[in-house]
Amino acid sequence: VRALTFEEGIAKLQEDMPEPTRGPQQAIVRPVVMGICDTDLQIMQGYSGFSGVLGHEFVGVVVDGPQEWMGQRVVADINFACGACPTCLAGDVHHCPQRTVMGIVQAHGAFAERVAVPVSNLLRVPDHVSDQDAVFTEPLAAAFEILEQVNIDDSMTTLVIGDGKLGSLCAQVLATTGATVVLWGHHQHKIDRIAKRGIQGALEPTWTGRPFDVVVEATGSKAGLQAAINAVRPRGTVVLKSTVAGAHELSLAPIVIDELRLVGSRCGPFDKALAALSDGDIDVASLIDAVYPLSDGLKALDHARRSGVMKVLLRC
Amino acid sequence: VRALTFEEGIAKLQEDMPEPTRGPQQAIVRPVVMGICDTDLQIMQGYSGFSGVLGHEFVGVVVDGPQEWMGQRVVADINFACGACPTCLAGDVHHCPQRTVMGIVQAHGAFAERVAVPVSNLLRVPDHVSDQDAVFTEPLAAAFEILEQVNIDDSMTTLVIGDGKLGSLCAQVLATTGATVVLWGHHQHKIDRIAKRGIQGALEPTWTGRPFDVVVEATGSKAGLQAAINAVRPRGTVVLKSTVAGAHELSLAPIVIDELRLVGSRCGPFDKALAALSDGDIDVASLIDAVYPLSDGLKALDHARRSGVMKVLLRC
Repeated sequence: VRALTFEEGIAKLQEDMPEPTRGPQQAIVRPVVMGICDTDLQIMQGYSGFSGVLGHEFVGVVVDGPQEWMGQRVVADINFACGACPTCLAGDVHHCPQRTVMGIVQAHGAFAERVAVPVSNLLRVPDHVSDQDAVFTEPLAAAFEILEQVNIDDSMTTLVIGDGKLGSLCAQVLATTGATVVLWGHHQHKIDRIAKRGIQGALEPTWTGRPFDVVVEATGSKAGLQAAINAVRPRGTVVLKSTVAGAHELSLAPIVIDELRLVGSRCGPFDKALAALSDGDIDVASLIDAVYPLSDGLKALDHARRSGVMKVLLRC
Repeated sequence: VRALTFEEGIAKLQEDMPEPTRGPQQAIVRPVVMGICDTDLQIMQGYSGFSGVLGHEFVGVVVDGPQEWMGQRVVADINFACGACPTCLAGDVHHCPQRTVMGIVQAHGAFAERVAVPVSNLLRVPDHVSDQDAVFTEPLAAAFEILEQVNIDDSMTTLVIGDGKLGSLCAQVLATTGATVVLWGHHQHKIDRIAKRGIQGALEPTWTGRPFDVVVEATGSKAGLQAAINAVRPRGTVVLKSTVAGAHELSLAPIVIDELRLVGSRCGPFDKALAALSDGDIDVASLIDAVYPLSDGLKALDHARRSGVMKVLLRC
């Protein structure tokens, strides 16, 4: 099968990868639309030491698996848990220490004509949700994870730092709570895309003091955390979304003195993301910058790497 | 009056400091027993840029003030809040942006024969609590702050890193919840002092994996945070107690990937600390290494600085 792989430091379009074999309790899915994530770009810079088929954002159709799943249009949680360890038995499959992660840790990804996925990870996509919306389920779930971790209500003020793909989704998710949401980024054209959803855009810090109850750091850069600390009120919460390779250098004294909370936040609830897409609560269409056929996957990766570009999709 | 001061980089015993003037809504207290804290030692290394009378741990007697307070034996919250700003009006006086802090930020401290304190900061000490116990109210309150910030119950496993004064108090406070408590430090003689209170001591990591729901970082050193991250389970909580001057250098990726919570923790509830001392829940007596008269304050500071020393007290 055709697949976009990363092996020995090189991204390649391969035409003759072997058909994935269906393990026990797995299904084979034919991806229809796939999304390129910053994590994919980081993997190509050596993050996670991954080798194999890239990609973890996709919507597809089940082509081999249990009868009740055959032909279903699906998305899939990317964490493949063991299901048997104490962490899994306690219900926290996203933190299974034995987990593999599709396209990130020791499991082939979705930038391919076929991918193997545990059946328990599949979710049906409602008919009225388009493929181009459904492909955002994974990153949107990561944004919804914030609401699983931090209580946010309509009395609160929130700031999202970073106007990229994830920041834009986080801002929209925060806005569903009725909280005041400011999106702070460097690109007017990005901010304009979602400012219409009741989110205030800011190219510079326009506030005085540190007025925010919750600040979400979604810059993907090391400087983001310091900016977040500088904007959050005493006893406020900073949500860390960026996985940045390498060491941070910063003073942690303000965290102690101001009794801040730092919450690391990764993968989230697919069901809530899919429900929000189904209800039309989140605008993802305006985040799409380009769609390439999988056969032009290397071009698509180059496009995604350009500064200021939002979501680049692939289609099979 | 006699006072132990820090001015222009030098700690000095001064015999002729002016009597403190009693501001509106203040009382004058004659300290009886005072405690030397690591923060005092850090101030003498330039932390906080403080200049004035040192000291924020004390128990004393009101010698001038409102009639109902005259002659009362008291301790006092060290944060002197303005009482009028939005933060104060919201009840969070410990984070008043205009606050001064006794012996730390722009307010004379308690290593003196007299100190001025806002009346609203005073708490009466029950008769059966000794001076040498009551002087621990401030650091013990800081330890109790953990329970204000993090839900801890008897089903949980906790680790305190650092067997110094604060770590020993934190371990005892955690033990009041019924949680499993391990105290990890480098000094057998320190660990032995409180191991008798149902706390397990460890000179080396004796556990496998990352079994702790909550890890309290109380080492006072930069290496403590990395050790805490290495010991806490995914989705667990790290409580940061050490205010370390200068920048940390560490990778924050594990915080995101394992969705850890970092909680900065500073000053705490004096009433709960005093109640615990009153009830005999906490052993502070065994933490005392030496008591010096205020006139030997410089010697006392030298003693407190020695490696492996726990609490050094002053008396007037």
